[in-house]
Amino acid sequence: MDLKNVSLLLLVLFLLSCQEKSNNNSSPQTIVDLTYAFDSETIFWPTADGFKLDTVFVGENPKGFHYEANNFSTAEHGGTHLDAPVHFFAGRNTVDAVPLDRLMGQAALIDVSGKCANDPDYRVTKGDFIAWEKAHGYPVDDMIVLLRTGFGKYWPDRKKYMGTDERGEAAVAKLHFPGLHPEAAKWLVENRSIKAIGLDTPSIDAGQSQKFGSHVTLFEHNIPAFENLANLDKLPDSGFQVIALPMKIKGGSGAPLRVIALLK
Amino acid sequence: MDLKNVSLLLLVLFLLSCQEKSNNNSSPQTIVDLTYAFDSETIFWPTADGFKLDTVFVGENPKGFHYEANNFSTAEHGGTHLDAPVHFFAGRNTVDAVPLDRLMGQAALIDVSGKCANDPDYRVTKGDFIAWEKAHGYPVDDMIVLLRTGFGKYWPDRKKYMGTDERGEAAVAKLHFPGLHPEAAKWLVENRSIKAIGLDTPSIDAGQSQKFGSHVTLFEHNIPAFENLANLDKLPDSGFQVIALPMKIKGGSGAPLRVIALLK
Repeated sequence: MDLKNVSLLLLVLFLLSCQEKSNNNSSPQTIVDLTYAFDSETIFWPTADGFKLDTVFVGENPKGFHYEANNFSTAEHGGTHLDAPVHFFAGRNTVDAVPLDRLMGQAALIDVSGKCANDPDYRVTKGDFIAWEKAHGYPVDDMIVLLRTGFGKYWPDRKKYMGTDERGEAAVAKLHFPGLHPEAAKWLVENRSIKAIGLDTPSIDAGQSQKFGSHVTLFEHNIPAFENLANLDKLPDSGFQVIALPMKIKGGSGAPLRVIALLK
Repeated sequence: MDLKNVSLLLLVLFLLSCQEKSNNNSSPQTIVDLTYAFDSETIFWPTADGFKLDTVFVGENPKGFHYEANNFSTAEHGGTHLDAPVHFFAGRNTVDAVPLDRLMGQAALIDVSGKCANDPDYRVTKGDFIAWEKAHGYPVDDMIVLLRTGFGKYWPDRKKYMGTDERGEAAVAKLHFPGLHPEAAKWLVENRSIKAIGLDTPSIDAGQSQKFGSHVTLFEHNIPAFENLANLDKLPDSGFQVIALPMKIKGGSGAPLRVIALLK
């Protein structure tokens, strides 16, 4: 083997080792937890039951070891949770039936926090999606789409986060927080093929919504929604993955969700 | 460039294209759900409260759209769930504090179903781990280790799955199902560095355990356990990843777990 061949062989080995390294480097990812913990302060809809933890036992067991265990009760729709399509559309997926491949994948973050800063009733438009797509050069097809309204910074202050800290039916009219415009939901289902959508407010429809048009449109098309997401300010606007695994409640209309982002 | 150089260059390009293809092919993965759904049949410890779903509303809303929502209550430790280290060791991680990187990663499946078929009290030994390591040529360090006892095939038949379908304190002595031998747990924490461990029975200690030695040893070392895993018969014994995301209960000793495997 002459010198040129040896150099070429070394080049092969070098390039292969570079590839291998870059493969290995792709595995140590940064994990961002997009989930709020459930406790007595966790924010629920004004009409819903909150989260309650009851201690069954905590302390030294007579057999000589430490033991602790609890029971808990909660509404399906509170804290960081998944809305299953059946929540607002009869015959669509219950939470246990949402396909897992809808809950994992590449994600897009649409940052509308600037627009929401002075307008707590802001509704994300078709134009907001198109602006993101123009900036990135590709559509949001097959992606999990997250909307950052910036309202996450108010958690767990109910009054700031959702417009009122009152409870009960009368408080619903006082809700103010951003959401997705029903026309934008219609545009999404007719023109794009997204896996799921999520945001950092209590509901995919804005607080002042009466008819929950974004819920109805998305859920008719079996697109689930993630609500009360945490830490959206720690995400870039593209180039990350989301994994969202809800508690598997048979026939549930929603469930507590543990949701994370993987950043390279 | 002579012919030999051209061949070597083609070899470079061929090898690089092979690597690239194998990278691309790694993306469409098979997802296996290792989680049982929660319903009124879900198996809990004989002394624990079971899962209860209460309908809040289901039907046509006066505003003209379908709506349904539920409340639920449950013990932390039932169905497919995570045992947080604090469950059996004071001062160790609560479920919300278990680091996410312990809950995701390469996995090993130790299949002891042959040994358990005729011995419902079988306890997985150090030898079972070493046999897997010898067969695969590497230790279980930094991995999520799953034990397949084969008892998953009995779910949701309580009598077959856990030895008794009775409830209450007196039923505990009648529990029969396989688990991890406390000596093997000791060997694991002293000689290996695993991320987490899981199995297809109600408890990481076998049904006849009195002192829960495997729980205590693992949890002292902050190694969480996944219990009542489903579909372990659908996994190979190596070359797959596990992602296990528990409900984030502040201060919880455990929680419902949604856990999946990713197969290439």
